[in-house]
Amino acid sequence: MSFRMRTGFFLQTRTGCGSTTGPVSRVLKYCNSRSLAVVPQGGNTGLVGGSVPVFDEVIINMASMKNVVSFDKVSGILVCEAGCILENLISFLDNQGFVMPLDLGAKGSCQIGGNVSTNAGGLRLVRYGSLHGNVLGIEVVLANGDVLDMLGTLRKDNTGYDLKHLFIGSEGSLGIITKVSILTPPKLSSVNLAFLACKDYSSCQKLLLEAKRRLGEVLSAFEFLDNQSLDLVLNHLEGVRNPLPPSMHNFYALIETTGSDESYDKEKLEAFLLRSMEGGLISDGVLAQDINQASSFWRIREGVAEALMKAGAVYKYDLSLPVEKMYNLVEEMRIRLGDSSKVIGYGHLGDGNLHLNISTPQYDDMILAQIEPFVYEWTSKHRGSISAEHGLGLMKANKIFYSKSRESVQLMASIKKLMDPNGILNPYKVLPHSLSYS
Amino acid sequence: MSFRMRTGFFLQTRTGCGSTTGPVSRVLKYCNSRSLAVVPQGGNTGLVGGSVPVFDEVIINMASMKNVVSFDKVSGILVCEAGCILENLISFLDNQGFVMPLDLGAKGSCQIGGNVSTNAGGLRLVRYGSLHGNVLGIEVVLANGDVLDMLGTLRKDNTGYDLKHLFIGSEGSLGIITKVSILTPPKLSSVNLAFLACKDYSSCQKLLLEAKRRLGEVLSAFEFLDNQSLDLVLNHLEGVRNPLPPSMHNFYALIETTGSDESYDKEKLEAFLLRSMEGGLISDGVLAQDINQASSFWRIREGVAEALMKAGAVYKYDLSLPVEKMYNLVEEMRIRLGDSSKVIGYGHLGDGNLHLNISTPQYDDMILAQIEPFVYEWTSKHRGSISAEHGLGLMKANKIFYSKSRESVQLMASIKKLMDPNGILNPYKVLPHSLSYS
Repeated sequence: MSFRMRTGFFLQTRTGCGSTTGPVSRVLKYCNSRSLAVVPQGGNTGLVGGSVPVFDEVIINMASMKNVVSFDKVSGILVCEAGCILENLISFLDNQGFVMPLDLGAKGSCQIGGNVSTNAGGLRLVRYGSLHGNVLGIEVVLANGDVLDMLGTLRKDNTGYDLKHLFIGSEGSLGIITKVSILTPPKLSSVNLAFLACKDYSSCQKLLLEAKRRLGEVLSAFEFLDNQSLDLVLNHLEGVRNPLPPSMHNFYALIETTGSDESYDKEKLEAFLLRSMEGGLISDGVLAQDINQASSFWRIREGVAEALMKAGAVYKYDLSLPVEKMYNLVEEMRIRLGDSSKVIGYGHLGDGNLHLNISTPQYDDMILAQIEPFVYEWTSKHRGSISAEHGLGLMKANKIFYSKSRESVQLMASIKKLMDPNGILNPYKVLPHSLSYS
Repeated sequence: MSFRMRTGFFLQTRTGCGSTTGPVSRVLKYCNSRSLAVVPQGGNTGLVGGSVPVFDEVIINMASMKNVVSFDKVSGILVCEAGCILENLISFLDNQGFVMPLDLGAKGSCQIGGNVSTNAGGLRLVRYGSLHGNVLGIEVVLANGDVLDMLGTLRKDNTGYDLKHLFIGSEGSLGIITKVSILTPPKLSSVNLAFLACKDYSSCQKLLLEAKRRLGEVLSAFEFLDNQSLDLVLNHLEGVRNPLPPSMHNFYALIETTGSDESYDKEKLEAFLLRSMEGGLISDGVLAQDINQASSFWRIREGVAEALMKAGAVYKYDLSLPVEKMYNLVEEMRIRLGDSSKVIGYGHLGDGNLHLNISTPQYDDMILAQIEPFVYEWTSKHRGSISAEHGLGLMKANKIFYSKSRESVQLMASIKKLMDPNGILNPYKVLPHSLSYS
């Protein structure tokens, strides 16, 4: 059975909890009483199968809950329904002179409820921090249909356990987020972006350290990609070109600054780049001269995932690792796989987040067997995370022990059982099968 | 029975969990098996009785766990034991070129484990955000003595429920934090501080909004106090003087900026102050010329609590409220109490956090009856928090319903029961008595 809630159904009911939470509550109450499993679904842009039904789950699609509830221009606090598309919120805030502390490639489709449920990271985390810091409150419907109103709009509130954090990143397995309150920073007028080349990974690392120290408060993104990633984008995406003169560089970095003073910020970034060039950390580089050029630089970084899709089959890994060891994994994987595959590394260097992707002409179990469990064991050995920002969903639920202790996972399972005793909320996801049905 | 763990006891045992976690685990295992209640105690600087025994609880004093475990200069990630005194960590990091994202008046005694357990806020929250954003991992001993190793040092990790948040701010009632991993930003070289006078509260608010927008990325603190607070400090603390020429101002604000460029940052702040003066938002003001003058300005703001103690009896309230309504409460309280008491308001305006304090010659139940429950009802009516940063502890546990819904508190109690079925961890605290023994 697959069931999509119709807009009409959403609109015909008003309750004390707002116009659209009531029906979600009633659907869950009904499903819980009959032990019918449900999958909450936002923009369905996740990469680990967290928002797709596995067998006969009822899909609760959140797209109709797309209203902004309130925005306070003094505090910058936005309250909105879970189905708001991220890009729409970004535009809304832009008109108000504020910015979302979250930005990611899928913004055109992904929804804020899904972002919060999966604790999405993205491109601005290095500046604004994680959603655990920026989300001030949520309204959530529990498995039994109870509505938990934690929709606070306060920066500080130490009255009891801060339960909202249980739902941030739990991928819809403990409740369905229906509203979100989020702290948004004022928009700053001056944004600068540089596309840079580094001769080796060690230079990228040093450049990051220097950027954090010298650009300090204006640094808003530090992304990197290797030359294999750039080649892939140039070969598979139309209209994308290398901003630098053709030459052999091994790594590329995007450094973005966001501040409140156009001329000073640009001078500051230019001075930093000059210094880094003289110090040998950068081999070449170009500063975006206008917003179009900046968009074309971002297109390269944000286009890697799309280019991979066009190139053939792809094995995707989203890992957190200590920055100094991060790229060793890419190199070891290349040696392991030889010429059978293209191994590329890119991601949010500023957050220690590597997107390791392996591109092959078609899916091949022999290749997969060479990648896994090696990639997880390597990550675990270096105390990394096997899912930095994508979550576990269906695909990685059984891999949780590579990053979490048995005691921690056991406690997660106990909390799941406490809050969803019939196991109706997004089953087969997040927690390992061995535990979620015990 | 009151029991203080001796240093010798801590040191004589080494386990896989580090040199000092083992004994905490064994003490809890023992106490749990015999249903002996325990109180974890850090610097004992809390204001709501969260770290004091009520009847016969065993005190587990954390002062011996005072080692820095590791510090990574590339990522700025500090791992340390729970008993480290905040000020020692601030000094340690200063030597490494980094800063703690947390600073508060009690830093000379309070411990990082206590800070995290109570989700301490303090003076830098407006810049660096809350501990939910900055704490990357913790090690915690559960009621049954199990050690939960969640001591991650990664900025991003979406593998399962992020359980550490349950312990941040739960005031030792779900487990005892033994180690902390925290993300620290690089120290920026240029700090500027201005002490300003505003004619009315409305000007303070507008000044805050302007500061957020125009100082943007360099704003690191925005504190306010009313003239009654300043009078109290000037009258009761030795060696403190008003930095401004004597004149009748109703409000004072401290604005601090932290950036990476001395001359530019100062110019920026000066330009902002000039503009605000011309626009009538500021009536008078002075920019600290050196670190000594800056310390003397901070002494005024940080000295209010001490001055109150010297002035007589004090009723303390730590409230989060929408900024625009915040000071109405102070004014209404003055009308309510008449000449019997001094009502003062100060706090972290940048975070919407008011410290409302009522000073009387001695404690008087008649006065208390005029303050409570009025202050809680007023706060609840405006969807504020009755404890912004101090927690609930013993004194406010029964007040939780003013800020949290019945469903939320019920879920908190269920989680408490799941994790501490014998109720040995910090009993009588945080949760209302009606629920914690049900």
